[in-house]
Amino acid sequence: MTVAATPKNFDAQRTRLREVMRRHSLQAVALSSYQAVSYCAGTNILTQVTLPDRLAFLGCFEDGEDVLVVCSIEATMVRGQTDVKDIVEYTEFSDDPTAVLIGLLKGRGLTRGRVGIEARRLQAHSYRQLQDDLPNVSLVPVDEDVEELQTVKSAAEIEMLGQAARNTLKAVLAGVQSTSAGETELSLCADIGASMYNSGGMPVFTFFSTGERALGAHMEPIDRPLREGELWRIDLGGRFFELMNSDLARTGVVGEPSAQQEDILQNLLAIQAAGFAALEPGRPASSVYRAIEAEFARRDMKFQMPHIGHGLGIGLHEFPILQPANDAPLQAGMVLNIEPMFKAPERGECYHVEDLAVVTENGYELLTQPQSSLIRIDA
Amino acid sequence: MTVAATPKNFDAQRTRLREVMRRHSLQAVALSSYQAVSYCAGTNILTQVTLPDRLAFLGCFEDGEDVLVVCSIEATMVRGQTDVKDIVEYTEFSDDPTAVLIGLLKGRGLTRGRVGIEARRLQAHSYRQLQDDLPNVSLVPVDEDVEELQTVKSAAEIEMLGQAARNTLKAVLAGVQSTSAGETELSLCADIGASMYNSGGMPVFTFFSTGERALGAHMEPIDRPLREGELWRIDLGGRFFELMNSDLARTGVVGEPSAQQEDILQNLLAIQAAGFAALEPGRPASSVYRAIEAEFARRDMKFQMPHIGHGLGIGLHEFPILQPANDAPLQAGMVLNIEPMFKAPERGECYHVEDLAVVTENGYELLTQPQSSLIRIDA
Repeated sequence: MTVAATPKNFDAQRTRLREVMRRHSLQAVALSSYQAVSYCAGTNILTQVTLPDRLAFLGCFEDGEDVLVVCSIEATMVRGQTDVKDIVEYTEFSDDPTAVLIGLLKGRGLTRGRVGIEARRLQAHSYRQLQDDLPNVSLVPVDEDVEELQTVKSAAEIEMLGQAARNTLKAVLAGVQSTSAGETELSLCADIGASMYNSGGMPVFTFFSTGERALGAHMEPIDRPLREGELWRIDLGGRFFELMNSDLARTGVVGEPSAQQEDILQNLLAIQAAGFAALEPGRPASSVYRAIEAEFARRDMKFQMPHIGHGLGIGLHEFPILQPANDAPLQAGMVLNIEPMFKAPERGECYHVEDLAVVTENGYELLTQPQSSLIRIDA
Repeated sequence: MTVAATPKNFDAQRTRLREVMRRHSLQAVALSSYQAVSYCAGTNILTQVTLPDRLAFLGCFEDGEDVLVVCSIEATMVRGQTDVKDIVEYTEFSDDPTAVLIGLLKGRGLTRGRVGIEARRLQAHSYRQLQDDLPNVSLVPVDEDVEELQTVKSAAEIEMLGQAARNTLKAVLAGVQSTSAGETELSLCADIGASMYNSGGMPVFTFFSTGERALGAHMEPIDRPLREGELWRIDLGGRFFELMNSDLARTGVVGEPSAQQEDILQNLLAIQAAGFAALEPGRPASSVYRAIEAEFARRDMKFQMPHIGHGLGIGLHEFPILQPANDAPLQAGMVLNIEPMFKAPERGECYHVEDLAVVTENGYELLTQPQSSLIRIDA
């Protein structure tokens, strides 16, 4: 494993957040999501995800005197991660973290004016407190602006995301090559998971299913032997370099595929390729969706996807989502998954491929090599 | 792996929710959290955690005609999981799930009255929509009531939680027995993770650290060899039987411990035992905290924990949290972790043990066997 250095220019990221503040005439922004706090403070407070009551806030101000509010349990770790100097610890269950944040805002004189919030990530309970205790402050949702800060990746981030994706792909390929019919879904996923850990990735999700079960979106592996002739689908992701997600899907077969199965997969790969070919700076995100949709139609394959790909980074589905209503222009440095899926319930089958690319000045560069055929597991 | 049947009495669980509704004079409750929707509908929509914008709601009504609002992507899977008959699908990005929920509430005539919400789990954005579109409806936080529904586990749930905990412990013990100094933290965690998968557990978090690094609360393993003389700490959890969490901590050493290291661990184990001994129906949750606190003091060891344990189930930290302000009485059937931690920064060490028990009619029963000494990794 080559370890890229984690970028430590969090202050530069908060400086860009201050541009958002100026644009919306905000005196402060209170970030509350795992994704935004991680991005802007450099932290990796996993309990923001696993323990949703253990709140963490990053308060950013016009003067750059930013402050992190974190649970005392996390404080030692956080001090080793962040470049934010002012860290206010609260004691879980005896202090109220939202009240601590409100106290800090009041201490900066923010009893009136405009404060940005992540409305889609702030809990209603905190929102009600902010409203009640700061009645003359306008709470302004800035979710989209905060997400847009993170869309164009740095060279270091692109390198990390590429390595994460390739390590995940290697784990899948090594796992399926060393298993065979009769082994269980769980033992295959155990191998794949072990490879993920060994290459520095903490498993985040592992969906594996065969046959009809694969028609369910997010089915986890079970204690069931792989059987000759079965189609299988894997969709998995891990966190590498502390913060960077991978997200990859592959479809294969136990034994030899039928000509029709291979034909469907080849069509899906051609559809995916058309999606990648549509990646170009300046084109709207929706046009990639439309390119995929058109390819499905041209091949007379039923298309029923609300989105066909998404940004990837600290978040699993980041802006820009490649969906029909998103006309935001693509930009060089965006790292995007393209993941067409073809459900054939009448066949009891689901085909799904997902690969990663970065938008470049001239088009795109693949960060994972798409599969070329249905991946065989020995019968 | 022995597979216990997942209990399918979700309707019985929603019936108990209706008692909450009567108690608070609510005409409906709109559940929004992964934990509560999973518990009351029997679903396992992991994207509620990994993709926080992909909302899912369970609307429960006085007449029992409950309704699930889920993203169309999840619908096939959800239909295979839940006993809720009315499933309303929304199309991501073109439909607004909160607007769908509001439409359903209006369709039931709920333009005035009282609707329960999970204020700590509902996003502020949805809350604002509910306020704006249902101005004559009182939105009543019922977080605690919804959590309390889940505190007393069924026999089947206790069996699943016990198996999950024991499988996690076995994975740790097998991993440390087969590794030795020179192997890396990552390769050890790869072994442990593989065992977790093989016993049916999807890794949720894997914290492993040695020496001073273990003083950080939630440090993940790195590509660094284990070295003789180092103290190590692991704290990990997985999801078994689709929904049930494990959460376990162990402390050990590479090679032989010093007498002082072993002495500290023995003190910590005695402290943990005092916590278990305090488990008894009718005693306040806080008394378990006080018992642990008193043992730390008696041994002249610095105590700095906001809580010393917690309920475990679909949620990772469930009610009752064993913290000083929680005077709720313990009840038979509660499944609780007790996890004292001793930080010795001057020694560059952190000791942590975490085991699971169920409160019984007469006291408690251990679901994992606590460690008896510092766990050796071969030097």
